[in-house]
Amino acid sequence: MNFNPSRDFARKLDTQDELASFRSQFVIPDPDLIYLDGNSLGRLPKAAAERVSAAATEWGSDLIRGWNKGWWDSPARLGEKIARLVGAGPGQVIVSDSTSLNLYKLVMAALALHPQRRRIVTDTLNFPSDLYVLQGCARLLGGRHEIVRIESPDDDVTPDLDALASAVDKNTALVSLSHVTFKSGYLYEMAAVTEMAHRKGALVLWDLCHSVGALPIELDACNADFAIGCTYKYLNGGPGSPAFLYVRHDLQEQVTSPIWGWWGQKSPFAFDLDYTPAPGVNRFLAGSQPILSMLALEAALDPLLEAGVERIRCKSVLLTDYMIYLADAILAPLGFTLGSPRASDRRGSHVSIRHPEGYRINRALIDEMNVIPDFREPDNLRLGLAPLYMSFADVWEAVDRIRQLVEEKRYLKYPTERLKVT
Amino acid sequence: MNFNPSRDFARKLDTQDELASFRSQFVIPDPDLIYLDGNSLGRLPKAAAERVSAAATEWGSDLIRGWNKGWWDSPARLGEKIARLVGAGPGQVIVSDSTSLNLYKLVMAALALHPQRRRIVTDTLNFPSDLYVLQGCARLLGGRHEIVRIESPDDDVTPDLDALASAVDKNTALVSLSHVTFKSGYLYEMAAVTEMAHRKGALVLWDLCHSVGALPIELDACNADFAIGCTYKYLNGGPGSPAFLYVRHDLQEQVTSPIWGWWGQKSPFAFDLDYTPAPGVNRFLAGSQPILSMLALEAALDPLLEAGVERIRCKSVLLTDYMIYLADAILAPLGFTLGSPRASDRRGSHVSIRHPEGYRINRALIDEMNVIPDFREPDNLRLGLAPLYMSFADVWEAVDRIRQLVEEKRYLKYPTERLKVT
Repeated sequence: MNFNPSRDFARKLDTQDELASFRSQFVIPDPDLIYLDGNSLGRLPKAAAERVSAAATEWGSDLIRGWNKGWWDSPARLGEKIARLVGAGPGQVIVSDSTSLNLYKLVMAALALHPQRRRIVTDTLNFPSDLYVLQGCARLLGGRHEIVRIESPDDDVTPDLDALASAVDKNTALVSLSHVTFKSGYLYEMAAVTEMAHRKGALVLWDLCHSVGALPIELDACNADFAIGCTYKYLNGGPGSPAFLYVRHDLQEQVTSPIWGWWGQKSPFAFDLDYTPAPGVNRFLAGSQPILSMLALEAALDPLLEAGVERIRCKSVLLTDYMIYLADAILAPLGFTLGSPRASDRRGSHVSIRHPEGYRINRALIDEMNVIPDFREPDNLRLGLAPLYMSFADVWEAVDRIRQLVEEKRYLKYPTERLKVT
Repeated sequence: MNFNPSRDFARKLDTQDELASFRSQFVIPDPDLIYLDGNSLGRLPKAAAERVSAAATEWGSDLIRGWNKGWWDSPARLGEKIARLVGAGPGQVIVSDSTSLNLYKLVMAALALHPQRRRIVTDTLNFPSDLYVLQGCARLLGGRHEIVRIESPDDDVTPDLDALASAVDKNTALVSLSHVTFKSGYLYEMAAVTEMAHRKGALVLWDLCHSVGALPIELDACNADFAIGCTYKYLNGGPGSPAFLYVRHDLQEQVTSPIWGWWGQKSPFAFDLDYTPAPGVNRFLAGSQPILSMLALEAALDPLLEAGVERIRCKSVLLTDYMIYLADAILAPLGFTLGSPRASDRRGSHVSIRHPEGYRINRALIDEMNVIPDFREPDNLRLGLAPLYMSFADVWEAVDRIRQLVEEKRYLKYPTERLKVT
């Protein structure tokens, strides 16, 4: 599309936006705030706010009976909703625990499938805590696994695909990657990478945290082995809402969770003294799930399913293309460079722009300009563009406020010392 | 105390109840319902209902900034509140994940402290899923550990303490027990058992699920090594609310979590590519916590802290003594036997009564008598007596309704086939 830099052009894009009405399904107490962090914590859907209050009321009146009225089955029920967003047929996705825990469970399960293979391949674009989990698993298994971490050729914007393909060998048990990388928003070609790994006999585990809810995912069609993801970014499940995991059908009976818990047992209420895994993917459940957070998430998924992930992706591409256009036109002269891929088919739904003063600019934007991006070391300002509640006018306004702030150097009064949580 | 079986006597006990006013801090939509399952899912505190709505509002307005306004620190902050209920000094308790997951983390950590010792001692009174976790850990570590499961001499009412002491030997790495057992409510002498195990050089891990919030616990004074517990029973945290774990100060720097996650890293927002454990007990955090459920729990703890666990224990003992008195007087002639210890100093806050038709009686009580106990195989009707919101009149009324139902054999029309969740 031929963009132009005027505010009117943004308004024109908004009039053509099929998803514009979805904004009204979210609680937006401050319409002046430009929220560019829906890729970290999605906004509150009205339905989720209502559901969590109703859930508390259910707890009060149903008491223990609530478990038979939908609480106990919530991991599988929510899993089926998310399955529709990740291209998974029934019985392969459950919602439970956190991303780190689900990753741990699946990495341990995957490595046990290939006890003779001792290499794990990942890259420096992967979310650091995914690397921590891999390191912990390798240590727990006696330190006999080698973790190969492919370096990026361009400062973590894009991966080195050739190096990746070379690193996956006959000794490789598992390839573990972020589908969309957290810093640059690079989008891996899931089908191609999975096929490459499978040719060498390796298993593939995809972290979908930064892609689920923002673009179509085809786990079944790609023949992916395992996947995990969080639900508080584009799925708008709320702070720390429970995560999900996917195990492909034909692998399920071959794998075991390292954590033999209460909810992953075949018949929890028989109170047998010996563990028998539940059939299917449910064996990856461990303990009780936080039902208030679960039910909020369940309601939060409805607007997404209603909009449809194809339409969301169309708008997302247009939003990020437009953001990059404006960044080139208006912010590049102020010292910003693009930290995301230019090709929209290799990009998720956030755009990173880099500036030597990125950290202070981020703080000043939040404190003074009513713009909330987030910052990722060393110099990335991440601009998340959540299609369900963001307008093209928001994008224009965000760039304009960044321009003002940087032109006036209003960030200079902020310390460069990092806050604990950013 | 000399009880008598009249309803008036129950009313008299209520007039002398120092904690009677706490009932008004709970949401009780049906005052006729006799809820005897607070040992499984505590009632909804009004403060928790208000807090969860407020938390949703915070999510909507604070958005990502909420993490810096108390969400991120909630595991440690809630841990300090629970520390006051379990006799733990600061910096030893965190709230996170589920009981099964916390047990898994601590068992793996404990076994790694004693790599040469290959015995784990537990008993058949322990919660079955605790046994599953132990079995899973033993398998993961190569099947070289022997799990010794002490049998109960009296059908799981009390443990065999002599057999337990004999089983703990110089090859024993860990003793893992439920402080109060889930079926009979037997209360272990924590100090004595911990000391016995320590004399043999073994570590001790206490599951506090059925004791926390119902009776004083002195983890520090008993020199306990590890403890875990849930928060949805006597702590009234709500369905599946996050669990807690305790690691004694001097052990913290010697142990590692098997799961090297996002929140257990020293500086999560530095995004280092290599894991360094957080100092202290925080290293046992893994991934993001479900904040809506966390904040509901935080508010739920206040009535307990206000009442004080000593006063709660006093009332609890009186409630259970009274229940046993009435069960002997009124229910024993109908075929019930006591499934709990008679000595109140060896008993938690629930009373089990056994009947060959226990399963059907439980279902009929729920469906027809507006009484909610719960059932545990093979024949236990568990009557949970939560001191903060239960009256002595409730106890009298419960026994009277059980009497009516069983005298009229109204349970006979129910199937004996078990429902999935009970």
